[in-house]
Amino acid sequence: MSAIKLGIVGVGKIATDQHLPAIAANGDFQLLASASRNATVPGLPGFTSIDEMLAQQPDIEAVALCMPPQHRYQAARAALLAGKHVFMEKPPGATLSEVEDLDQLAQSRGVTLFASWHSRHAPAVQVIKAFLAKHAPRQVHVIWKEDVRHWHPGQEWIWEAGGLGVFDPGINALSIVTEILPTAMFLKSGVLEFPANRDAPIAADLRFTDANGLDVHAEFDWRQTGKQSWDIIITTEAGVLRMADGGAKLWLDDVAQELGDEGEYPSLYRHFAALVQNGKSDVDLSPLRHVADAFMLGKRKAVEDFHS
Amino acid sequence: MSAIKLGIVGVGKIATDQHLPAIAANGDFQLLASASRNATVPGLPGFTSIDEMLAQQPDIEAVALCMPPQHRYQAARAALLAGKHVFMEKPPGATLSEVEDLDQLAQSRGVTLFASWHSRHAPAVQVIKAFLAKHAPRQVHVIWKEDVRHWHPGQEWIWEAGGLGVFDPGINALSIVTEILPTAMFLKSGVLEFPANRDAPIAADLRFTDANGLDVHAEFDWRQTGKQSWDIIITTEAGVLRMADGGAKLWLDDVAQELGDEGEYPSLYRHFAALVQNGKSDVDLSPLRHVADAFMLGKRKAVEDFHS
Repeated sequence: MSAIKLGIVGVGKIATDQHLPAIAANGDFQLLASASRNATVPGLPGFTSIDEMLAQQPDIEAVALCMPPQHRYQAARAALLAGKHVFMEKPPGATLSEVEDLDQLAQSRGVTLFASWHSRHAPAVQVIKAFLAKHAPRQVHVIWKEDVRHWHPGQEWIWEAGGLGVFDPGINALSIVTEILPTAMFLKSGVLEFPANRDAPIAADLRFTDANGLDVHAEFDWRQTGKQSWDIIITTEAGVLRMADGGAKLWLDDVAQELGDEGEYPSLYRHFAALVQNGKSDVDLSPLRHVADAFMLGKRKAVEDFHS
Repeated sequence: MSAIKLGIVGVGKIATDQHLPAIAANGDFQLLASASRNATVPGLPGFTSIDEMLAQQPDIEAVALCMPPQHRYQAARAALLAGKHVFMEKPPGATLSEVEDLDQLAQSRGVTLFASWHSRHAPAVQVIKAFLAKHAPRQVHVIWKEDVRHWHPGQEWIWEAGGLGVFDPGINALSIVTEILPTAMFLKSGVLEFPANRDAPIAADLRFTDANGLDVHAEFDWRQTGKQSWDIIITTEAGVLRMADGGAKLWLDDVAQELGDEGEYPSLYRHFAALVQNGKSDVDLSPLRHVADAFMLGKRKAVEDFHS
C-alpha cells in the first residue's frame, strides 16, 4: 500500500513536539502540506486555512488536526465533506454534541475518523489492562499534578471556556482509566476549583464509582511545583499496581515491571494507518463525557487569581 | 395482552401530579405498589425502598422512577438486574456516563429502558417537526422563563450539584428542540448565572448552531415573576412558527393552529407500553448531553444569593 498523503492543521507546540517527528518516522505517511494561522513546516507548502490547503493540494488523503478544541469542528467537517480521513488531537471537540455529529458524518461518508487519546498508547497501559482483566481492581487513585506555567507557557486558550483548564492534562488520566478498567465508571461527586479571574478550573477532586461500588479517586492540580505527578495507583487482590510518569513506568508491589519503550505518538500514527487501511473509525467519547459530567455534577469553588 | 404490573418509586410532586393520574387512566398498566422514603399511594402497599418493594411484590414487571436524578442509577440498576422494565423521569441521571451504563445493562438483560422526555409529548411538537422537515429553520429562539418559587416549592435538591438548577425546566425545551430540528445542533457559547450561595445555575443564555450555521438562541431564567414563558419561535422561509405554553399552543404567522388536547403523561405511558410490548428501549441522551456541554463550555457568572 502506498503512503497515506497527509496534511497537518494547527502547527503549534503539540504538532512540533510530537506529530511531526512521529509522521516523519512512519513510512505509512507522506506529509504534503500544513495549514496554520502563524506557522509552517519547514520545506513544505504552508497555507493559512484548511480550506485553502485542501483546494491547493487535492492529493491529500488524510488530515491531522492539532489546533485547540474550540476550532476543531469546522476543520474536521470540511475535511470529512471533502472525503478525507481525519485524525483529531485530544480532546476531540469543545462539546460532546459536535463530536457525535462528526462521527455520524464520517460514517455516512465512509471515511475514517480517529478521536485520539495519546496517553492510552503509553507503554504501561495495555499491561495494566491485561492485569485488571484477571484481577479486579478494588481501589483506584489517580494523582495528576503538574505545573501549568512549565507545561503550557503562553497557551491562553486553555484558560478560556471550552479550553478545559486542568482537565486538559486530566483527560489524559481519564483516557487511561477508562481504557484499563474492566467496568464502566461514573462520577459520584466532585469539586472544581476555579481561579476568580479565569473561566476554566485549576484543580479538581473527583470521586467515581462503578456498578459494584469500586472507589476511584482522581486528583488533578495545575499548581504543582517541584516533583510532577502523573501517577495511578490500583489496589487489587493480587497486589498493588503503581503507574508513574503518565504510563512510562509501572511497579507491582514495588517490583519494577519491564515495559516497551514505545512512544505514544508513533503508536497513535500506526493505529491511524491501520484504521484507514481497514476502513474503520475509532471515536470513544468516554474521557470527554466524564469531563462534561464533572462540570455538570461537580461543585464549583472559587480560589485565588491565577497569573501566568 | 394483560396489563403490565407496575411499581412506582419516588412518590413526590411529579408522581402525584402526573404519573398516578396517567397510570390510572391507562388500561395497559396495573399499579401494584409504591416505594418512597416518606410517602405512599393511598390504597396500595407502600415500601421505603425499591429493593424491599421488588422482594415483597415479585409480580411487578415494570417500575416508574420519579425520584431526583441523583438517586436514579441505583434504583434503575436494581430493577434492570431483577429483569424489570424501567421508565425514568427526566433527567435520566446525574451523569451521562451512568445512563450509558444503564442502557448497556438493559440491552444485555433484554428489558425495556425508557429515558422519558415528557415535553416531547406536548401536542405541538410533532406538528412542528413535520413542518420543519419540509421547511428548514433559519433561526430558533427559545424563551423558557419561570418563577422557581412557584413551580419548585421546597425542592432543595434542584439547587444541589447534580440537580441542574434552571436546566431542570430548560432541559424540557432542549428535549423539544432536539426532537423538532432536522439537523443536529451543538453549543457554540453560553453564560451560566450561579447565585453565590447555590451549586446550580439560576439562569443560562446559550448559543447553538448546526453544520449549516443555524442560529439557535436559548434563554433560561428562574427569576421570572408575572407572565411565565415556555415559548419557542422558529423562523422559516414558509413563515414564523410560535410555540407557547410548553407546546400546548402553536401559531403560524399569527394564525392559531389546531392541536390535539392530548396530555403529555398519558402519551408517555402509551409509548412506554408500546416499548415493553415490542421489546424496545428508547434512550436518547441528547438533551442531557447539551446540558453537560453547557456546563463544560459555558462561562460562569456569579449573581446575587437566592433564598427560597
